[in-house]
Amino acid sequence: MAVAKFIYDTSERSADLFYATRFTVHDPIIFFEWRGKSYLVLNDLEIDRGKREAKVDRVLPFASYLKKLQAKGAKPRLIDILHRVFSDFHIRRLQVPRSTSFALVDALRKKGYRVEAGPDPFFPERSVKTVSEVSAIEASQRVTFAAIDHARTLLQRSRVRRGRIVYRNAVLTSERLREYISVFLLEHGMNAVNPPIVSCGIQSCDGHEIGHGPLKPHQSIVMDVFPRSLKTFYFGDATRTFCKGRAPDALKRLFATVREGEKLGLQMVRAGRNGRVIHEAIVTFFEKNGFPTGEKEGRIQGFMHGTGHAIGLEVHEEPSRINRYDCTLKRGMVMTVEPGLYYSAIGGVRLEDIAVVNRSGCTVLAHYPKELEIR
Amino acid sequence: MAVAKFIYDTSERSADLFYATRFTVHDPIIFFEWRGKSYLVLNDLEIDRGKREAKVDRVLPFASYLKKLQAKGAKPRLIDILHRVFSDFHIRRLQVPRSTSFALVDALRKKGYRVEAGPDPFFPERSVKTVSEVSAIEASQRVTFAAIDHARTLLQRSRVRRGRIVYRNAVLTSERLREYISVFLLEHGMNAVNPPIVSCGIQSCDGHEIGHGPLKPHQSIVMDVFPRSLKTFYFGDATRTFCKGRAPDALKRLFATVREGEKLGLQMVRAGRNGRVIHEAIVTFFEKNGFPTGEKEGRIQGFMHGTGHAIGLEVHEEPSRINRYDCTLKRGMVMTVEPGLYYSAIGGVRLEDIAVVNRSGCTVLAHYPKELEIR
Repeated sequence: MAVAKFIYDTSERSADLFYATRFTVHDPIIFFEWRGKSYLVLNDLEIDRGKREAKVDRVLPFASYLKKLQAKGAKPRLIDILHRVFSDFHIRRLQVPRSTSFALVDALRKKGYRVEAGPDPFFPERSVKTVSEVSAIEASQRVTFAAIDHARTLLQRSRVRRGRIVYRNAVLTSERLREYISVFLLEHGMNAVNPPIVSCGIQSCDGHEIGHGPLKPHQSIVMDVFPRSLKTFYFGDATRTFCKGRAPDALKRLFATVREGEKLGLQMVRAGRNGRVIHEAIVTFFEKNGFPTGEKEGRIQGFMHGTGHAIGLEVHEEPSRINRYDCTLKRGMVMTVEPGLYYSAIGGVRLEDIAVVNRSGCTVLAHYPKELEIR
Repeated sequence: MAVAKFIYDTSERSADLFYATRFTVHDPIIFFEWRGKSYLVLNDLEIDRGKREAKVDRVLPFASYLKKLQAKGAKPRLIDILHRVFSDFHIRRLQVPRSTSFALVDALRKKGYRVEAGPDPFFPERSVKTVSEVSAIEASQRVTFAAIDHARTLLQRSRVRRGRIVYRNAVLTSERLREYISVFLLEHGMNAVNPPIVSCGIQSCDGHEIGHGPLKPHQSIVMDVFPRSLKTFYFGDATRTFCKGRAPDALKRLFATVREGEKLGLQMVRAGRNGRVIHEAIVTFFEKNGFPTGEKEGRIQGFMHGTGHAIGLEVHEEPSRINRYDCTLKRGMVMTVEPGLYYSAIGGVRLEDIAVVNRSGCTVLAHYPKELEIR
C-alpha cells in the first residue's frame, strides 16, 4: 500500500516543512506528498501567498473542504478536514515526523489510517546539503564570525579597571556584549533566535549558561553565536574563546590544547568516518595532555559535551550528536566540530567551526583566527 | 489510579515546561509532577544550573540512571531511562501535552503505560495570569509600543520623493524598518523571535506577509510587533497602521472604522463573555459601515482573521482564536483585540492592543495613540 508523507506543523517548528515547501507560516498547515506530487492545504489567510511562494505542486483551499463539511451540518474539526482531504486522494497510509502530536495520530488511527514514523530528518536528503545550501550556510557563518569579531573589537577597545572590563565608561557585562552581538547580527541580516552565549570564567563551565553579570579580565570569555539568516533561514554556528588582559598559564595551556583538539577533530572528519571515533580521539588527546574528563569535586569536568552536530535549517540537525549514535559521516553533510574543556579552577574554553564533509576530508566554511588574549 | 503529568521537551518549544520550571534549556529534558511534587531529570551539562535555577522540588541525574542501565550491559535509549525513572516512582499512568511526539507515546504504551492527553495549556492555571505575569506582559507591551513609536519617528523624519519614502538619503523599505524595530527591541531587552510585520498597501492584505521592498507614501503601512522579553520571556503584541503622506479618503474611512471596531471589541471584553459574540459584533459593525467580509474578486476581503488570542509565554496561547471555539473569557486572562480590514483596492488596516479581562470589563496594558497619517 502506497504511503503518503504527511506533516501538520508550522514552518518555524518544522524545518522539514520549510525544506519541502520553502514557505513560512506561523500557524500549522497541512502538507502531504503523494504519488510524486506535493500539496499544501491553506486557509484564506495564507492561500494567496502560498500559491505565489510555496514550492509545492498544488495548493488546496482549506475553506472549501470546511464549507463542504459544514454544508452537511457538521462542525468540522481538523481531523474531519484531514479525513476529507485524504479520502479524496484515496490515501490510507501515512508517514509522519516522529515529533507529530500523538493526539493527532490517535485521531487518525481511529479513522482507520495506518500511521508510522518517518526518518529524521523526515526528508533524508536534507542531511546531504546541495551546493546552494552549503553556500547559504557559509554566508551565515561569515556573518557569525563578523559578529564575533565585532565583539572582539569592543573587548580590544575596552580597558581593564579594578577587576572589571570597561567600555565607553560602563562596565562590560555578558548581557551588554550579547546585545552588541545580537544587534550586529540583525544589522547584517541575521537573527539570534536564541541569544548568543557570552559567559565568563566559571560560568562558562556550565553547559548552556548563557552568561550574566560583569565580564572579568584575565579569565576566559566563551562566545557561542548561532544565528539564523532572515533571508535563507540557514544557521551559522561558531564559538571563540577570548581573554581580556593577561591569560594565566593554565588557561593558555587549556586553550592551546582545545585548539589542537579541534584541529585533530577537523583532520579526522571525512565521509565514512564514525563520529564516535572522532570524539574519542579528542577525549584521549585531551587526557594525554593532562586534561581528563570525569567527575571532580562533585561535578563533571573536562570535555563534557558532544563533538559536533549537523547544521542547516536547524542549529541542531540529526545527527545532533555525531558521537552518540555511532553515526557515519556522509559526503555533503555540514557539521560543527566544537571541542571544549571546562575546569572550575581554570574556566572554560570552547572552539567551534563548521565544515562540509568531503570524500577524503572536510572543508571548513568561513574562517576566523583562534587567539585567546586580547590586550 | 494516580496520574503523573509528564513533559519531554525543550523550554523553547514548550512554554508549559518553562511555566512549570522557570528553567531554560535548548535540548529536551524530562519533567514530571507526581503526588504533589515536581521533578526534572537533567544530564551532566545542565544539572548544576538546574539545581540552582529550576523551580522544581527535585532534580534527578540522568547520568546515574544511564549508568545503572549500562551496568546491566544495555545500550539504553530514552524510553529505557523513562521506564527506569517511572518504575522507581511506581508511575503507571501519564498525562502529557497534546503536542507530545507520537513515537514517544507509542514507546511508552508498548511498555504498558496508560498515556492520555492533558489540557491545553497543560497547566490550566496558565491561562489566568498572576499579578506578576500581568506586569511582565505590560512591561513587554510598553517596549513593543516604544519600538513602534521609534519606527513612527523614522517615518516622520523621512521625506516623500518620487513615490518613495526616503530616510537618511536611502529608500525606506519594509526590511530596513523591520531591522530598525528589531534592533530597538534588542537594545531594550526584547527579542523579535519572529520578525515584525512591516507591510505596505496591497501587501498588508495578505495575512502573514511580513512585507518586503520599498514602502510607499500615501498608502497604509501595517506594523505588527510581537517580541519576547529576554528576561521574563513574556510576549508583547501590538499593531498600528500608519500612512506616510496624505491618506486617501477611502483609507481614512477604513482606519476610522477599524478604530471604532477595536473600541467596540475592547468595550465588550469582560469575564463570562463568549469570544465569538465579540467577533460577530465587530464583523456586523464593519458591514453596517460599508465594509463587508467575504469573497471579492476571487479572494477573501474584509475582516478575514480572528479578533484575538490569549498571550503570555507564547504569542498565541489557548484560546488562540477567541472567536473560533465559543470560548468564554475568564477573569485574569490576557488577550489581544486586533480587528482589521483588508481590501485590495484600499489596502489593509489593523489595530491591536492587549488587555487583561476583569469581572466587569478589561484593562488595556500600556497605551499608544491610534493615528493614521504621518506628515
